[in-house]
Amino acid sequence: MKFLHTADWHIGKKLHGFDLHDEQDDAYRQILDIALANKVDAVVIAGDLYDRSLPSEDSVKQLNHMLIDMNLTHHLPLLAISGNHDSATRLHVGSEWYAQTNYYLNTELANAFDPVEMGDTQFFLLPYFEPWQARNVFDDQTIKTVEQAMTLVVNRQQKAFKPSMKHVLVAHFFAAGSSQTDSETKVVVGGLNAVPLDLLAPFDYVALGHLHNHRALTDDKIKYSGSPVKFSLSEAEEQKGVWIVDTETVSTTYVPIKPLRDVINVTATFDELTDPAFYKKMDRDAYYGVTLTDKAIIPDVMNRLRQVYPHIVSLDRQNGRDELPTVQTVDPTLAPMTLFGRFFEHVNDDQMSEQQQKWAEQGLQKAERED
Amino acid sequence: MKFLHTADWHIGKKLHGFDLHDEQDDAYRQILDIALANKVDAVVIAGDLYDRSLPSEDSVKQLNHMLIDMNLTHHLPLLAISGNHDSATRLHVGSEWYAQTNYYLNTELANAFDPVEMGDTQFFLLPYFEPWQARNVFDDQTIKTVEQAMTLVVNRQQKAFKPSMKHVLVAHFFAAGSSQTDSETKVVVGGLNAVPLDLLAPFDYVALGHLHNHRALTDDKIKYSGSPVKFSLSEAEEQKGVWIVDTETVSTTYVPIKPLRDVINVTATFDELTDPAFYKKMDRDAYYGVTLTDKAIIPDVMNRLRQVYPHIVSLDRQNGRDELPTVQTVDPTLAPMTLFGRFFEHVNDDQMSEQQQKWAEQGLQKAERED
Repeated sequence: MKFLHTADWHIGKKLHGFDLHDEQDDAYRQILDIALANKVDAVVIAGDLYDRSLPSEDSVKQLNHMLIDMNLTHHLPLLAISGNHDSATRLHVGSEWYAQTNYYLNTELANAFDPVEMGDTQFFLLPYFEPWQARNVFDDQTIKTVEQAMTLVVNRQQKAFKPSMKHVLVAHFFAAGSSQTDSETKVVVGGLNAVPLDLLAPFDYVALGHLHNHRALTDDKIKYSGSPVKFSLSEAEEQKGVWIVDTETVSTTYVPIKPLRDVINVTATFDELTDPAFYKKMDRDAYYGVTLTDKAIIPDVMNRLRQVYPHIVSLDRQNGRDELPTVQTVDPTLAPMTLFGRFFEHVNDDQMSEQQQKWAEQGLQKAERED
Repeated sequence: MKFLHTADWHIGKKLHGFDLHDEQDDAYRQILDIALANKVDAVVIAGDLYDRSLPSEDSVKQLNHMLIDMNLTHHLPLLAISGNHDSATRLHVGSEWYAQTNYYLNTELANAFDPVEMGDTQFFLLPYFEPWQARNVFDDQTIKTVEQAMTLVVNRQQKAFKPSMKHVLVAHFFAAGSSQTDSETKVVVGGLNAVPLDLLAPFDYVALGHLHNHRALTDDKIKYSGSPVKFSLSEAEEQKGVWIVDTETVSTTYVPIKPLRDVINVTATFDELTDPAFYKKMDRDAYYGVTLTDKAIIPDVMNRLRQVYPHIVSLDRQNGRDELPTVQTVDPTLAPMTLFGRFFEHVNDDQMSEQQQKWAEQGLQKAERED
C-alpha cells in the first residue's frame, strides 16, 4: 500500500502575531493534491493537529473542514494521533464515530496496542504521552522516562504483529540523535526523554511528528515529515513537504510543499533594503526577519521598512546601534517636549513622526492644564 | 413512532460552587432507563448540552461518554440542536460523521429546513440562533427580531412538509406566554424575541429547550421538557423529568427524574434547624437554601449549620439582623486583636472560631515584628 505521512499542522499558529490561516489552508490543499495525485491509500497525521490545547473557534472550524474534506468528500482513510500541543480529550471527541469511514484517530496510550490494518500493513497509532500515563497503563510505578516506557510499548505492540504484514508506527516524540535548530544553534536530541532508534527496529517504518524539519533525523525508515508550513524564522531555510511511503518496497519519496508566503531572513543595510534595485529582486510579500548591519540611528525605521516589506516579523541589529545620550545625562531643565522626544527615541530607536509629535504635544498640554 | 424529549443538560454546571457532575450522571442514567423502558425510537435533546461555550475537559469527557453510550452502545437514534449556552462551532465537530449512526446534531440555522425523517415523522432541527444569523440565511436585512425570523423559518420548513407525515420542530427559544420563575417572581415571557405560539401551529409537536421548568408553558403540543437536574434554588419546587411523545396519537406523558441530591429551600430559626427533632425529618444530604428568621447575631452560624446540612448553598436572613456597632464608632485605641475581631464579626456575621483567633493573633504578631 501507499500512504502520505504528514504531521505538525499546528492549526491556529501565529508567526509573531501574523495569522497563518491562509498559509495553512494553502498547504492543506497541496497535501490533498499530493495525496490524490499519488493515489495513496491513506493519510497519516503524526500529531499536533492544533497549535493549542484550547483552539479558537476559527481553528476548530478550519481543521474540521480539512478532515471532512479529506475523509468524507475525498474518501481518504486517515490515521491520526494527538501531539503534545493537542488536548487529547478535546481532540478525541467524535473519534468513536470517525472509524466508520476509516478515519482512525487515537489520543490514548491504552489504545496504541491494537493496530489498524489497511492493505498489507498494520498501523500502530501511538499518541504523545508522558511517563505518568505509561505508569497507569502498564501498572508499573518504576517508569520514569519515555525511553523506559517505549521499551514496554514496543514490546506490547510486537505481540500484535502479524508476520505476514508490514508494521508501521505513528508516533510523536523526540527520536534520539535528531537535531533541533533554533536560529543558528543546532542541538542534538538525547537524554532520557528521547527514544533510542534501536527500540524502533521492529517496525518497517516509523512516521514521526514533533520536530518541524524533515531533515532533523537521517534514517531510512524512521522519519519526521516536518510541518507543512514554516512556523518560525528558524525554519526559514527548511524545505517543507510530506513523505509518500510505499510499504511494499518500503521506499520513501519526499514531495515538497510550496509556501504561499515564504519566511526569509535577510541581513543588509537599511539603504540596501530600501533600494529598488535590491528589493525588486526580493519576494516582498514574504515574512521577513530583518537584521540591519547599520549602527546609525535610523528614524522611523520599522515603518519605512514595512512600506517595502509589509510582513516584517522581526527587526534586529547585527552590530548594535549607536548610543543615544542616556536619559540620566539629559539636562532636566529642557522643555518637556524635548525630553519626551529623547525618551521616545531612546526606547523606540526611532524619532517621532509628525502625527506622533502632534499627539505628544496635545498630551503634554492636557497634562499641564490638569495640573 | 415514539420519542423521548429532553433538553438543557448544562453539562459542567455548578450550583453555587458545588459540582453537579454526579447529579448529571445520575439523571443521564435515568433518562437512558426511561428511553429503554419506553422503547422509544429516538431521543430528542433540545439544546444547551453544555453549560458553557468553552466547556472544561471534564465536561467534554462527560457529555461525550453519554452520547457514545446512548448512540453507539444502546443504538438509540439522537436528534439534537445547540442552545444559547453551547458554542455551535465547538459542538458541531464530528456531526458529519454522527449521522451515519442516526445521531443528527444540527448547530446551523441554514440546515434547519431539511428534515430528518424517522418512522412516520419529519423532525426539523432548529438550533438557537440570533437575528443576524437569520439576516444572513434569508438575505433579508429587515429581520430584527426572533419573531420576524421565525415567520420565515417556519414558512421555509413547511415547504419540506410531506402531508402524509407528522411534523416535529426541535428548537431552543422563549415561547411567548411561558413563565419564568426567579425565586418568588414569576415573569411571563413576551416581547419581540419571544416566539408567538400561533407561528408554531403547523407542527404536530414542538420539542423546546431553554426554560428549565417543564410547566413553564401549558400547551398540548408545544412543550418544554425542562432540565433533568435542578440547577438553582429557584428550581427547588420543580418536578424534573422528560416527555415521552407518541407521534401517532400525538399524546405525551411526563416521566419524572428523581434527584440524586435534592435542592430544598427552608425557612426557620437557627434553633429549629439545629434541633434533632427537626432535622431528623429532613433530607440532610440535599442542597439547601437556608433563610433564617432570627434577628440575633449567631456566632459561627454557617459552620454550625453545615455540621447538620453539609451542602448549604446560600444563607439569608428573613428579618434582617441585629446591628453590630459599626466600625466607625469603634474606639481606635483598642488593641489590634479586639479591633480585628469586631471587623470580622461585622463582615462575616459571625465570631472567629478558636482556630481563626489563633491565626489572626499569629498574623498580627508577624505584622508587628515586620514593622
